[in-house]
Amino acid sequence: MEALIKQFVGQFVGKKIGILFCLILINITPLRATPITQVDGVDVVEQWGIFEVALDGPSDGNPFLDVQLSAQFTNGVITTNVDGFYDGAGKYKIRFMPQHTGQWRFITQSNRWSLTAKKGNFEAVVPTKDNHGPVGVVNTFHFAYADGTPFKQIGTTSYTWTHRPAEVEQQTLDTLANSPFNKLRFCVFPQTHGIETMPPQRFPFAGEPTKPDYSRFNPAFFQHLENHVDNLRQLNIEADLILLQPYDDKHIWGLDNMPAEVEDRYLRYIVARLAAYRNIWWSMANEYDFLRTKTEADWDRIFQVVQQADPYDHLRSIHNGKKIYNNTKPWVTHASIQNGFAVTNPGTAQLYRDVYNKPIVYDEVEYEGNHGSRWAQLSGKELVHRFWSGTVVGTYVGHSEFLVEANDPSSFVWLGQGGILKGESPVRLAFLRQILEDSPAEGIEPIDKWWNPNIGGQAGEYYLIYFGHERLNQWQFALPPVGLTEGDEFKVEVIDTWNMTIEPVAGVFKVKRDGRYHFRDINNKQVKLPKKTGLALRIKRISNAN
Amino acid sequence: MEALIKQFVGQFVGKKIGILFCLILINITPLRATPITQVDGVDVVEQWGIFEVALDGPSDGNPFLDVQLSAQFTNGVITTNVDGFYDGAGKYKIRFMPQHTGQWRFITQSNRWSLTAKKGNFEAVVPTKDNHGPVGVVNTFHFAYADGTPFKQIGTTSYTWTHRPAEVEQQTLDTLANSPFNKLRFCVFPQTHGIETMPPQRFPFAGEPTKPDYSRFNPAFFQHLENHVDNLRQLNIEADLILLQPYDDKHIWGLDNMPAEVEDRYLRYIVARLAAYRNIWWSMANEYDFLRTKTEADWDRIFQVVQQADPYDHLRSIHNGKKIYNNTKPWVTHASIQNGFAVTNPGTAQLYRDVYNKPIVYDEVEYEGNHGSRWAQLSGKELVHRFWSGTVVGTYVGHSEFLVEANDPSSFVWLGQGGILKGESPVRLAFLRQILEDSPAEGIEPIDKWWNPNIGGQAGEYYLIYFGHERLNQWQFALPPVGLTEGDEFKVEVIDTWNMTIEPVAGVFKVKRDGRYHFRDINNKQVKLPKKTGLALRIKRISNAN
Repeated sequence: MEALIKQFVGQFVGKKIGILFCLILINITPLRATPITQVDGVDVVEQWGIFEVALDGPSDGNPFLDVQLSAQFTNGVITTNVDGFYDGAGKYKIRFMPQHTGQWRFITQSNRWSLTAKKGNFEAVVPTKDNHGPVGVVNTFHFAYADGTPFKQIGTTSYTWTHRPAEVEQQTLDTLANSPFNKLRFCVFPQTHGIETMPPQRFPFAGEPTKPDYSRFNPAFFQHLENHVDNLRQLNIEADLILLQPYDDKHIWGLDNMPAEVEDRYLRYIVARLAAYRNIWWSMANEYDFLRTKTEADWDRIFQVVQQADPYDHLRSIHNGKKIYNNTKPWVTHASIQNGFAVTNPGTAQLYRDVYNKPIVYDEVEYEGNHGSRWAQLSGKELVHRFWSGTVVGTYVGHSEFLVEANDPSSFVWLGQGGILKGESPVRLAFLRQILEDSPAEGIEPIDKWWNPNIGGQAGEYYLIYFGHERLNQWQFALPPVGLTEGDEFKVEVIDTWNMTIEPVAGVFKVKRDGRYHFRDINNKQVKLPKKTGLALRIKRISNAN
Repeated sequence: MEALIKQFVGQFVGKKIGILFCLILINITPLRATPITQVDGVDVVEQWGIFEVALDGPSDGNPFLDVQLSAQFTNGVITTNVDGFYDGAGKYKIRFMPQHTGQWRFITQSNRWSLTAKKGNFEAVVPTKDNHGPVGVVNTFHFAYADGTPFKQIGTTSYTWTHRPAEVEQQTLDTLANSPFNKLRFCVFPQTHGIETMPPQRFPFAGEPTKPDYSRFNPAFFQHLENHVDNLRQLNIEADLILLQPYDDKHIWGLDNMPAEVEDRYLRYIVARLAAYRNIWWSMANEYDFLRTKTEADWDRIFQVVQQADPYDHLRSIHNGKKIYNNTKPWVTHASIQNGFAVTNPGTAQLYRDVYNKPIVYDEVEYEGNHGSRWAQLSGKELVHRFWSGTVVGTYVGHSEFLVEANDPSSFVWLGQGGILKGESPVRLAFLRQILEDSPAEGIEPIDKWWNPNIGGQAGEYYLIYFGHERLNQWQFALPPVGLTEGDEFKVEVIDTWNMTIEPVAGVFKVKRDGRYHFRDINNKQVKLPKKTGLALRIKRISNAN
């Protein structure tokens, strides 16, 4: 490490005063997923990996309130200011995610001498295979990683899985590793009521949970949390982190009603800790409207605090209970909707697209479950149906389950505590994900939104048609005219969304115009269907007459 | 008139200079619907009637551009600045709608001496029976007149009915007088294409239609238009006036692509002429997104020009083609939506309520018609179904029809030209209106929006349940618990929305709780239904146990 520090110092000319003094204070901490290595004596980190500066500094007074620390990172073209944070026991850290390959250097700023003007440099190298960078919005309604790889979202929710014994948390990670899910929604805070029975193992603030010291964070709480964000990063799972939530509604801890300045400090602290993790998404709150002491102006402020603190502009959303936030506001990157009704058929779900002009993610559409509450008693089949209903109109649907086994004394359910998945839907969602991964990179778009809402795809090239609860024994090949030329040829596959089969239909479908609203097969060919619910068609152009 | 003017003058002390000089220049023009009368020598106008000041002024140069004229009206508490306008031939007018009863006085301002410092006064008296004032938004999602009378909207559209021969225009008015419609959407401008075949009889600008003089309006055009707004006012029909439209898309006249300063002048001119008509609503455009040369910023500007020019804050909306304007913006008073799909079932229509938190008016849901285009080939039954689907979720639906009779050489259709109504829906909409007029003043609200979207009303008191395309032979009495107390008693009526019958169900339904999500009749009573489509129930509480 000493040699490494010398390397840093050697890169800089001028301003030598104080460098020797501070040498032993600078540490570069390798993070698990993207270890910093040395190549020919230069520190190396992946593009979109994490470069961490660790500094020793004052531990007297209240460092959380008293000490300001940040660093300026530059590659000579782009300069990024990044806030550091106090990690307890006199340790300070600054984490940076290089968004470009090449040489980077940094210099710290602080209101404490021992943390001021620390410098270093490193090289960001081409990322390894599974590192595609952070996810952002593309084509108005869709997502892609920073390197352009489409992100076809199949999300799930496990609200407080990070508040479990270590073996349960590991079980959750193992479950995720073998699941179709590439996004996990979960809460920072523990919860007091409803489906929760355990007291929290860690608490975000110093003091006692019922008498928190809002002026001091508990670094161990956040270290534990970020360790799990990192675990998800290694699994290529996006961490849709819920920053606030109403599930302290007996106000035992007051986490649902912190003073605004505490809330803002908390938000800046967690963003400083986690923004360098490429897989982080910020969800301002779950069921935000159930936090009844807050106004819409509070939520506007919360969004803006996060937006301003995050150098990388990670995705930002807010999840509704019954009242939907005004998702047209500029700091909202995508709508995170609770509304199970909207995906009960293939058409309704699209209405939010038209008003928000942003990606629509139905993060709660009710859960597969056997709970007494109607929000957790969907059959696996109905949940899979809702995924398909949302998918064909160019929106994204989220999963969770609430299945209690009669003989399980733990009462752990995936929605609350994590652990294992017991439902019938995940394997079908893996099948859906496979279909999505094969679908056009640009995303699935409604083709004829108010007339044929069950047809999505990319006009002319690719179509998914979903028949939902209909039980058809045949379908006359017919597509909306947009994007088509007479003579285009297509092949058709029949998908059974529940039994997970894809059956090619024999022959080729060659199209001609039939009136103003359809192209049909030149021989009016039909597609035979097995008269079941949950059928879909995948239609791909194999020859373009245009 | 001379005596009348003297009365005005007599009310004012001071500033006598110039009053004698201008006496003959001031005229008060009685408008048909609310004639100005004299009581004990004082001019009298109804509250929400129109008080018009007519002045003679310069006709040289270009008065439309050169002369500024406005007046300040006050009742001693409220002061309103009202723009005047040039009406051609040296005539200037200022129109004022008093929003309160009592004494009012005014004084003019102008950049021309002959129009400056004209004064007068009058009394606004209690309005006559059918004058309830302008319509505004109440209870977030609904409408009422200024005097508090609910406005239960059953609208229709006839785009260019004011561009017809006089006898056809009169026929349209006669049709409306005997129709259920209390709102009419129509365009200021004529149109060139599509369903239009006649050249326009009047043109808004001087010069030739194909070579308009954008610097001069044609007062006769606007006099004709406002005469019809007044005719509608007498029929108690709101005039939802469409200010801009894309139906000059061969750009023959350029009305779809005026320079911004011409457009703004036009908007201020028409607002100055028409804002004093209590029945005016402003629709910025029809299918605004088909005006392809305009950006969203243009529409924001257009809204704001109208908002700033209108002293009375009349309702403002904008109607979409395929892309919906951001109706969350503060100058939008209600959403005016085109989307037929949204009202094909009783649930989908509510989604826009949740995002806009404003009244949702489905002004186009496709039309009853026999046209080759799919937007004008609904059966009357389907259009009536769409009205009911929207109604039970607390939204409003609009009518029009496009029915061409084989032997009618005029090819006049209600949607375009007005004339007569030929469809099967209007009589059923009259029936619906009767039901709405009987419904709670607060409006129909979803009771359990994502679980029972076909139940609307006011929880505990009044329910409308619509079964749409279902053909039920019975319904087990069951209501969502909100607002209910065990022991509440209800009576039930079965409504046939197509055959226009209301059949009371024998007996009383007394409720008890059944689980978390329902109240049922204590004897689990069923309601027998005639196994037809288009059935609804009206359920009213007759005794409250609470």
